[in-house]
Amino acid sequence: MDTARRASAPSDEASKWPLPASGAWHPGLGAAERMFFELSPDRPFTLEGGGTLTDPVLAYETWGALDADAANAVLVCHALTGDAHAHGHAHPPSQPTDGWWNDFIGPGRPLDTDRYYVVCANVLGGCQGSTGPSSVNPASGRRYGPDFPVVTNRDIVRSQRALGRCLGIDRWLAVVGGSMGGMTALEWGITYPSRLGALVVIASAAEASAQQIAWSKAGRQSILDDPNFRGGRYYDAADGEGPHRGLANARRIAMIHYRSGDEFDRRFARHSENPLLPLRLDHRFDVESYLDYQGAKFVPRFDANTYLVLNKLMDLHDVGRGRGGTDAALARIVAPTLVMSVRTDFLYPRPQQMRIVEALSRRPAMRVEHVDIDSDNGHDGFLTEPDQTGPPMGEFIDDVYKNSPRTLAVSR
Amino acid sequence: MDTARRASAPSDEASKWPLPASGAWHPGLGAAERMFFELSPDRPFTLEGGGTLTDPVLAYETWGALDADAANAVLVCHALTGDAHAHGHAHPPSQPTDGWWNDFIGPGRPLDTDRYYVVCANVLGGCQGSTGPSSVNPASGRRYGPDFPVVTNRDIVRSQRALGRCLGIDRWLAVVGGSMGGMTALEWGITYPSRLGALVVIASAAEASAQQIAWSKAGRQSILDDPNFRGGRYYDAADGEGPHRGLANARRIAMIHYRSGDEFDRRFARHSENPLLPLRLDHRFDVESYLDYQGAKFVPRFDANTYLVLNKLMDLHDVGRGRGGTDAALARIVAPTLVMSVRTDFLYPRPQQMRIVEALSRRPAMRVEHVDIDSDNGHDGFLTEPDQTGPPMGEFIDDVYKNSPRTLAVSR
Repeated sequence: MDTARRASAPSDEASKWPLPASGAWHPGLGAAERMFFELSPDRPFTLEGGGTLTDPVLAYETWGALDADAANAVLVCHALTGDAHAHGHAHPPSQPTDGWWNDFIGPGRPLDTDRYYVVCANVLGGCQGSTGPSSVNPASGRRYGPDFPVVTNRDIVRSQRALGRCLGIDRWLAVVGGSMGGMTALEWGITYPSRLGALVVIASAAEASAQQIAWSKAGRQSILDDPNFRGGRYYDAADGEGPHRGLANARRIAMIHYRSGDEFDRRFARHSENPLLPLRLDHRFDVESYLDYQGAKFVPRFDANTYLVLNKLMDLHDVGRGRGGTDAALARIVAPTLVMSVRTDFLYPRPQQMRIVEALSRRPAMRVEHVDIDSDNGHDGFLTEPDQTGPPMGEFIDDVYKNSPRTLAVSR
Repeated sequence: MDTARRASAPSDEASKWPLPASGAWHPGLGAAERMFFELSPDRPFTLEGGGTLTDPVLAYETWGALDADAANAVLVCHALTGDAHAHGHAHPPSQPTDGWWNDFIGPGRPLDTDRYYVVCANVLGGCQGSTGPSSVNPASGRRYGPDFPVVTNRDIVRSQRALGRCLGIDRWLAVVGGSMGGMTALEWGITYPSRLGALVVIASAAEASAQQIAWSKAGRQSILDDPNFRGGRYYDAADGEGPHRGLANARRIAMIHYRSGDEFDRRFARHSENPLLPLRLDHRFDVESYLDYQGAKFVPRFDANTYLVLNKLMDLHDVGRGRGGTDAALARIVAPTLVMSVRTDFLYPRPQQMRIVEALSRRPAMRVEHVDIDSDNGHDGFLTEPDQTGPPMGEFIDDVYKNSPRTLAVSR
């Protein structure tokens, strides 16, 4: 009997899956639709925090075709637990989930792949093909684990700039993203103002708030407290002996603030699997079963060290750092900017988006628009409301595309 | 070297305290100001969920003197981590914290002990003197631990009714409480409508929402996942080997939704202990240090099994259960009722209180009042804003007292 696996199963659902010590992708699983970009083959890639990476790689996917002027490329930036697979089917075990923004990308969709060349890359520090803590460090021959350096959004942007140049894209038509991806997009607009035609920032912020850091901390702590975390060196543990319980509870915590009280009331209310026997300590309300399910579903596709690294990346997100403050940083943006908020998002509340809109609106020549998304899905509204989020984004980018100097030159 | 203790210290602050396996009170610590009431000395005390307790005890404290008509008694109901010590100094190690409602109780204070007889009892299932999971079960001679039965708010109310009668109180002038204590107070008004003159419910609800259950679940899970929890049988573990990490993280999670984003922004912003070296994985923002401190401070004064039992009690709170629904239950209340909300409370949001107010307001003869507390302390505003919460509560009770039939009879 596999007691080790049972002992570390985050919930009863987990027994349905094999549970390697880490849910990170590795080459043995097959590439699926991933392509790989050697970010810095000739020398170490130096990070904002001072760390270096030897021979780092970005896993990326593309959809559509780059036009002759390389004027139709859209960069999609993913959120904390996203990856390069923004569009397409699941390919288990290599690509275990459907594209996370399927409804937004494709022929006739807001990011119309009949017209645009859409690119998405797993971030540095990630666990779905890009170099991260679960990767083998070529310098030592063993997994980075806890030795993986701090990565910031500015490192992500710089790595994506290099990927773009490799793909022949000197200027993106648009850089778009939600949540952490919105943070990355915002850094893009600030770091390379002239290298993008439009900026779309959804359910995001110019800097992580203390409350966001607090939630991030509680999730990280649940991983650190898991004895199977082993200080981050769990990769060689037996199947099922990774930090699954800690990672699952980090996900439970996150799912609560990714959604909303309104949605939980609507979907779960006080229903339970056994409503006739509620007065038991082991009774589960449906919302608890939902959280258990979300935790168990997450563990096989993610890596605990990546969770720590990317959570820290988000906590460290502060566009004003070293730039004279938030306003001075936002003042560097020149690309027309569309900002979106989800009504019930209490993780990235609307005032954080209005902070950006108001700073940009102070400049008379600046084009900035704001859209409210009416959804009870909370923060996850940036993923779950394609009908509300997609068209404004698509129309905004279409408009910029139609009026871009290169496009005008071509059409003349 | 005490590696066991170091290994289970929830944070660096914890090394300052001795950490018994449980922070529960036990007779060896001394009674301090506790008095003990034998709830059901002659037969088992049967609970709503069907469990029984043999020789259960309530620890309680009182302040002021009961008048000749027993018409001036106020029952204060405590919140999840509260206890009978609502007023008075800390008496370490027996009574490790100051009274949790010190500013509300005392001569000249809203619950004026020159005029009122104020009573507060630790709830059944608690860990500060009342019978709970950390108590020895007289039937077995060992601690209840995970065998402690489910307790509901209705059990709490029934036990407090028995305490009142023992103290000579057949009818409370008022029953008051915030958060879980507000749930208890509400149950009082429904269960014994004619046994109280006034009801004060602060930052509370008629039933736990799905989101409240979700947060409760995440905290419970962090305890259950702690290997030192040992299925709830940790009482005989060596010092420092109790489920301290899990309990500390449950407290971290709770502290985030007990406070508010506004407050965290004001107090902590993005400040950190070492602002010049933020780009490190082990860097802590001040809000993280605060959560670590709150976790470490909580562990020595609380019991993990009690946390599970009382969290479940709150999840099971539903005044409508077996009474034909929430409206039918609330319709039983006849006592004049004051309900208070805290503007920034997102754990018990204002609509939950307005639900109660609106149900009571439908009855023309019913006196119901509502007060908004303007505080950025979130849910904890029921504890931290004596200047806003105390006077309306005191005036409401004073008014009921002045106009009560018995008082009028005495003054004539």
